Amino acid sequence: MSHTLTSTPRTDGYRMPAEFEPHAGCWMLWPERPDNWRLGGAPAQRAFADVAAAIARFEPVTVGASARQFLNARRQLPPLVRMVELSSDDAWARDCGPTFVVDSRGGLRGPDWALRGVDWEFNAWGGLYTAWDQDALVARKILEIERVDRYAAPLVLEVGSIHVDGEGTLLTTEECLLNPNRNPGLSRAEIEDHLRDYLNVEKIIWLGQGVFNDETSGHVDNLCCFVRPGVVALTWTDDPADPQHGISEDAYRRLAAATDARGRRLEVVKIHQPDPVFITEEEAAGVVAQDGTLPRRAGDRMAASYINFYIANGGVVAPLFADPHDEAALAVLQQLFPDRKVVGVPAREILLGGGNIHCITQQQPL
Amino acid sequence: MSHTLTSTPRTDGYRMPAEFEPHAGCWMLWPERPDNWRLGGAPAQRAFADVAAAIARFEPVTVGASARQFLNARRQLPPLVRMVELSSDDAWARDCGPTFVVDSRGGLRGPDWALRGVDWEFNAWGGLYTAWDQDALVARKILEIERVDRYAAPLVLEVGSIHVDGEGTLLTTEECLLNPNRNPGLSRAEIEDHLRDYLNVEKIIWLGQGVFNDETSGHVDNLCCFVRPGVVALTWTDDPADPQHGISEDAYRRLAAATDARGRRLEVVKIHQPDPVFITEEEAAGVVAQDGTLPRRAGDRMAASYINFYIANGGVVAPLFADPHDEAALAVLQQLFPDRKVVGVPAREILLGGGNIHCITQQQPL
Repeated sequence: MSHTLTSTPRTDGYRMPAEFEPHAGCWMLWPERPDNWRLGGAPAQRAFADVAAAIARFEPVTVGASARQFLNARRQLPPLVRMVELSSDDAWARDCGPTFVVDSRGGLRGPDWALRGVDWEFNAWGGLYTAWDQDALVARKILEIERVDRYAAPLVLEVGSIHVDGEGTLLTTEECLLNPNRNPGLSRAEIEDHLRDYLNVEKIIWLGQGVFNDETSGHVDNLCCFVRPGVVALTWTDDPADPQHGISEDAYRRLAAATDARGRRLEVVKIHQPDPVFITEEEAAGVVAQDGTLPRRAGDRMAASYINFYIANGGVVAPLFADPHDEAALAVLQQLFPDRKVVGVPAREILLGGGNIHCITQQQPL
Repeated sequence: MSHTLTSTPRTDGYRMPAEFEPHAGCWMLWPERPDNWRLGGAPAQRAFADVAAAIARFEPVTVGASARQFLNARRQLPPLVRMVELSSDDAWARDCGPTFVVDSRGGLRGPDWALRGVDWEFNAWGGLYTAWDQDALVARKILEIERVDRYAAPLVLEVGSIHVDGEGTLLTTEECLLNPNRNPGLSRAEIEDHLRDYLNVEKIIWLGQGVFNDETSGHVDNLCCFVRPGVVALTWTDDPADPQHGISEDAYRRLAAATDARGRRLEVVKIHQPDPVFITEEEAAGVVAQDGTLPRRAGDRMAASYINFYIANGGVVAPLFADPHDEAALAVLQQLFPDRKVVGVPAREILLGGGNIHCITQQQPL
């Protein structure tokens, strides 16, 4: 009941809405793999459940878990959260989930028919683990459950590597989208063409690198994002000795020099990052090392950033790191989103798995 | 998103509609266990896919399959069928699925709120296999997907062991519901109380035995069913030497003597069974024998009956056995359902697994 379409969203008049447009709900997956999540996933599961509960205050949340974990997840999640059996190889709904697109002409059809989904090719972020057959089916399974038709895009892409303003502008990074571990056969121009065809954007703003040491090869959703059309939030550090300093400066320069699809200059709001966060001995020891899975080594710096938040209907759910910058980050976000309630959730256990709150969520627009 | 309610459908004013009332759709599960389905399930899968395709002509169909089988099932099912990941221990949606109940006062709430589900206790038909933890979750998972609230009924019951007319009358068999392999601690009166509480029926008509050699301990849905209020179809044989003869005669006598909840006498329509059907050597050899699973032995008689059909919106999907009686059965059904199109589907491969079309389906009322 999810028909695969052979046209493109662009030719059909569908577009990817911005995250700050109204949602029908949010999708998440349940973490369990012991070679990525310490202690059999138990601490991460509590953090995921806290994120789900926080988002569920604002909009419907569905969490997909394997058959093995169904009852364990159901027990930890509030009853308000819908649970479905949905296997994955890891738990990043942002990256293996679908990109929902909506009828950009609006209002001509019923709500069910105005929604479609883009199912991108997936290769586990260029190969962070060895098998990803279940992750590769996640988008399709979500679209089946929702009875939403599907575009199969001929491009390896995780949705965390793009952000849109809903008005024709897309943000991404060269480090990720031009990385030979994703689409080695495609030129920058060909990749741009696919983005235009499947997201119905006009203007692509290329940033350079993503956050320092981000294992995703620089997903934009950890570096910067649209707060509303014309306004971008950017992770920042005042410490010139931090390798992140130059990365954020370069992103700032490119954003400040850019115009969006409507010809506007962008306002860039800096959010200071937490102090550098490193994997502890205890944390590293809790992971079951496995050949072919990215190792979790004590002392490695993690790509901590407050930008990795989720925008819900009437709310914003942002990561906290038990860091002196937590409070300031929440305050800036509350200024940026005056009509939404900003909620912080402790997220170190999510960060330990390689991402954060934005990475483990996927909005389904209305 | 399926809240478990502590009240009962009866106190809340919900009732189980008859199968011939309007449906939102039909649920099925995908067979795969090699100790019950021959040749790794491949022939049964084709038969299930044919049933799904036949029902999908009339109403939306959702099929649940394990993660292992998802792509195989998707490939065999028509695109019109919705597929979800949904593990089971075997593939009998009738028996481990929920009983949907509707607001009997009607129209006071939106359609989403008028529907609830009864989740019965399940013990694999009194223990036909050794583990049923996945089957026991099927009803709950279906209710989660549909965001339908749940009553947890304190009674071991497969939905194939009951039929209702939607007007307060229930048909069942003593062989099944009073069997010590189901609810050894409950008296007939206590079981009746549970049926009244959770299905909101007034009158329970007890038949004796189910179809000869039916491994379910005599599910009524293989023996007889309501065609509409006041009219029951009953499997029959004219051969007095067939052990089914006495069973059908006894059922006929009880039905003819009964009145329903509204005080009506029942009209009983006989549908002659196929000639006795036996498991062949080849069929038995295709099953991987497993300790603790009911064996499939060459020469065993199967409980073949035309009564095991599914009533869809505007259609009836009935089993065929490549038998001389097939044509007459379809003709009687077409007379009984003049406003529906009767479609036959070859069903021997389903029968080999221990049931038939009604057993592998579960309607979701509007």
